[in-house]
Amino acid sequence: MSTSRTGGRSARVREAVFEAASALLLERGLGGVSMPDVAQRAGVAATSLYRRWGGVTELLMDLAVERLERESPLPDTGSLAGDLSVWGRGVARIMRSPEGSAFFRVLVATAPASGSDAAARSGALYRRFGEIEAMLDRARARGEAVPTGWDIIDHLLAPLYVRTLVGAPPDEVFAQALVDRLLADVAARDR
Amino acid sequence: MSTSRTGGRSARVREAVFEAASALLLERGLGGVSMPDVAQRAGVAATSLYRRWGGVTELLMDLAVERLERESPLPDTGSLAGDLSVWGRGVARIMRSPEGSAFFRVLVATAPASGSDAAARSGALYRRFGEIEAMLDRARARGEAVPTGWDIIDHLLAPLYVRTLVGAPPDEVFAQALVDRLLADVAARDR
Repeated sequence: MSTSRTGGRSARVREAVFEAASALLLERGLGGVSMPDVAQRAGVAATSLYRRWGGVTELLMDLAVERLERESPLPDTGSLAGDLSVWGRGVARIMRSPEGSAFFRVLVATAPASGSDAAARSGALYRRFGEIEAMLDRARARGEAVPTGWDIIDHLLAPLYVRTLVGAPPDEVFAQALVDRLLADVAARDR
Repeated sequence: MSTSRTGGRSARVREAVFEAASALLLERGLGGVSMPDVAQRAGVAATSLYRRWGGVTELLMDLAVERLERESPLPDTGSLAGDLSVWGRGVARIMRSPEGSAFFRVLVATAPASGSDAAARSGALYRRFGEIEAMLDRARARGEAVPTGWDIIDHLLAPLYVRTLVGAPPDEVFAQALVDRLLADVAARDR
């Protein structure tokens, strides 16, 4: 009982901190967010933020992973073409929003090339890879021809991400064209 | 005469500053490079660095653009397949090196979504776009079938970049496979 109340309070604090950090990120950009500012805006002691996240980089990384996962869940429409279309267009929509683009930049900027942080990052990343593989497994079980998980990263996600980074954010028409091309390549390979 | 000596000295100072910043970047990562540290290691007054670059972000961006351009010049081999192969494999090689990967992360992390910095960034970016278009123009003049410049960014550079960012740096075999697929798509479209 006391554990569950602690869990509820803990979740509320986490959400208040995420909202404060998210607002500061949009107002000031990546370099303008500090732990004391987040603590003040969230009405939480800075010491408890340091205890929970260690530093502002870890806090922002945790925030970005949570928000991007929440806003682009992998769909299950009954066909791979439908799944990729809904998901690809959803990612394009997020990348065009100031929030989505800001969270994505956080992930990239805080991406460790290697070392101790890599495990934490890989956790989020490999969870997403696992979801993509599950989507492909469902399609395979229905007897559909499927691309590899890496094909989806290389030729659907990568162009959407890189266009965001070069300041030419993708739209849903572009996302759909990427999906069509990916599926046409799979069909051609199977022929 | 005095102008040329000033130019030579200016270029030498610039190179010393770039070497100092580059070494600090590799030792400490993006968050660990400050103007006073760069100045000290380069043996230059910090005030002159602030005068020339404004801030450490601008200095690192200038460094990253210069190094990445110097290390992956666009080739002119006499065929588009040859040009893309040499260039794509060269980019993969750079992305596997600690320096190349660090410079690339600097570019991404300092990428402004919009605003006053965007012009400076666009300068480097659009210069590169221009070089890609020149490569395609040469191929067109030889009567070859060519993809668009954006096709090259979406399906050659984007996968190479995103694999670097997710900690699975591309190798030359992968780069060559991307080139082959891009050219096969162009050939199929032309048929």
